[in-house]
Amino acid sequence: MGNLRHMLRARTLLGPGPCNPYPEATAALGQPLLGHLDPLFLQVLDETSDRLRTVFGTANRRTLPLSATGSAGMEAAFVNTVGPGDVAVVAVNGLFGQRMVDVASRTGAEVVAVEHEWGQPVDAERVLAAHPSPKVIAAVHAETSTGVESDMAALGAGKGGALLIADCVTSLGGIPVELDAWGVDIAYSGSQKCLGVAPGLAPFTISDRAWERRITKPQSWYLDLGMLGGYAGEAAGSGGRTYHHTAPTGMVVSLHAGLGRVLEEGLPAVHARHAAAGGALQAGLVERGMRLFAAEGSRLPELTTVWVPDGVDSAGVRKRLLEEYSIEIGGGVGEFAATVWRIGMMGHNARPDTVALVLAALDDVLA
Amino acid sequence: MGNLRHMLRARTLLGPGPCNPYPEATAALGQPLLGHLDPLFLQVLDETSDRLRTVFGTANRRTLPLSATGSAGMEAAFVNTVGPGDVAVVAVNGLFGQRMVDVASRTGAEVVAVEHEWGQPVDAERVLAAHPSPKVIAAVHAETSTGVESDMAALGAGKGGALLIADCVTSLGGIPVELDAWGVDIAYSGSQKCLGVAPGLAPFTISDRAWERRITKPQSWYLDLGMLGGYAGEAAGSGGRTYHHTAPTGMVVSLHAGLGRVLEEGLPAVHARHAAAGGALQAGLVERGMRLFAAEGSRLPELTTVWVPDGVDSAGVRKRLLEEYSIEIGGGVGEFAATVWRIGMMGHNARPDTVALVLAALDDVLA
Repeated sequence: MGNLRHMLRARTLLGPGPCNPYPEATAALGQPLLGHLDPLFLQVLDETSDRLRTVFGTANRRTLPLSATGSAGMEAAFVNTVGPGDVAVVAVNGLFGQRMVDVASRTGAEVVAVEHEWGQPVDAERVLAAHPSPKVIAAVHAETSTGVESDMAALGAGKGGALLIADCVTSLGGIPVELDAWGVDIAYSGSQKCLGVAPGLAPFTISDRAWERRITKPQSWYLDLGMLGGYAGEAAGSGGRTYHHTAPTGMVVSLHAGLGRVLEEGLPAVHARHAAAGGALQAGLVERGMRLFAAEGSRLPELTTVWVPDGVDSAGVRKRLLEEYSIEIGGGVGEFAATVWRIGMMGHNARPDTVALVLAALDDVLA
Repeated sequence: MGNLRHMLRARTLLGPGPCNPYPEATAALGQPLLGHLDPLFLQVLDETSDRLRTVFGTANRRTLPLSATGSAGMEAAFVNTVGPGDVAVVAVNGLFGQRMVDVASRTGAEVVAVEHEWGQPVDAERVLAAHPSPKVIAAVHAETSTGVESDMAALGAGKGGALLIADCVTSLGGIPVELDAWGVDIAYSGSQKCLGVAPGLAPFTISDRAWERRITKPQSWYLDLGMLGGYAGEAAGSGGRTYHHTAPTGMVVSLHAGLGRVLEEGLPAVHARHAAAGGALQAGLVERGMRLFAAEGSRLPELTTVWVPDGVDSAGVRKRLLEEYSIEIGGGVGEFAATVWRIGMMGHNARPDTVALVLAALDDVLA
């Protein structure tokens, strides 16, 4: 059987995530493991929830890292809020909006999908007009498939009696997220994008308003927020803890460390660093004659989408970048699989030297 | 905000899991991270599936680590096999059998629970007679709540047309598991027990026979084996890989390393080490006048249950062990919360020095 000796050279991870974690997040994984009911671990968990509240821009007491990846956060959002007889309006402007439709429809809810051209932001007016009284409205804040940011505040302002669900997988820690100011009721993210931690956890938050209207016995036991609340989030501070499942303690300690690094640098500085790296990358690509994919004005700094130049073999370039430069960038998604590249500047990688490296490598490979 | 300076002293984790990981598993978490579509990572994933086949005792090609903890493995087993109109017979001889009933009932299936006294093994005859034509029969191989092993081969021999689901969370890597020989169709485990890896992954396997009778669009998107099969397991070796969700690559590399350590030592030697450690612990407790909880003949070596001596404050002893000796042991479950202790000898901890340490510490605290 093989071992890890083939991993002699570190990858520079500039795809749509995971990115290279913050060194503090990796170092935390080497700490002695804690049990999931150890008072020391529960303190780390509570601090992690506090830190998540800060990056999410929310005071929601029910804020915690779910024990699975970001897509499980999406599933938790829907199975805890809708079921047969409920209407969910879903804005679709990329793969993750499509995934929301699939996930929501498996609850038995009626799903109204509002389709958009890929590369465009969500049209709040059209989404809000799609149904007179949905139970939830859902949209992706930062579409990982297209590199597009959408305006969640516009949806929050017009949501009326509906609950607003925001996918913040690729936005959290990279661009400002202000859930309470925007009127978002439920949001989730992933540890491996701009938060700069390995994949494996889904930061999650739900407002009191949404909590009161939740499905009390959701179809998923693992993602049942009512049961999870006894272990984390709701009970924090009250002293009462009920075992639900064995939390991935090492990963939580790592997320705690990654968030600590982000908050030590300061959220405005972290956002500025992402904006500078993404802006420099996008300018560099345009200088080289390439065309950006995402609509102007809605381009994410942390994930750049660019058309593959005419006549260039997309997969061949990615293979050479990986094999010769140990740099990973992403291909496109769906019909754009072979015609678009996705280049991430996330977390610890959002730096000028990373921009210079990937541009230089592209220059060499495309020469 | 706090940092990790309070974690100056490593815990010796002798509760029901997590245990202290094998050093190789922890070291792997410090390796440079790989992307989930990197050919190097896919090679590690395929080798991990191979290694899991060996420890599970199966040739099932669909064998993979699910991206969540053991309880998600349980949910995956049920949501992919039963729904409205199906009958699930579940053997209940502890908390995890009860959990199976809850998880299975959320699919809309008719659940026939066959109750047993806690501390006793599953009565195969009674379980097999509980319903004439169930779609699935499910039982826990090693009950983490009671420290009891049950005979899965007896269920496999009499299962008839039913699919047999085995919970191997606390058995895999600690005692022999021979799924194919026993006739088990679906099994799952957790990374943090006898496999000696941090919590966060659920090793999972499903036979071709069960695959053909699966629910093709299960209520869970995240645990949809049909979609997961495109990424891991089924497609392995064929070259075709479809993105499903971002796999927790760091954790998979760690599981790969932990399994490598187990197989390098050799499964018979690893099982013998667990048997020796558990046997020595149980003999030591009996020598000290304590009474074991689990039925004689069905006691797990990797998890010992023992009655708290009369007049002793169970929680107080656990608190002193944790604070003075940095040793974690577990309390009991349910009605036995304050009257039973659970002491694990799992993975890297299944050693004579660990047995000596916990017995010496108990002697001091109980003196």
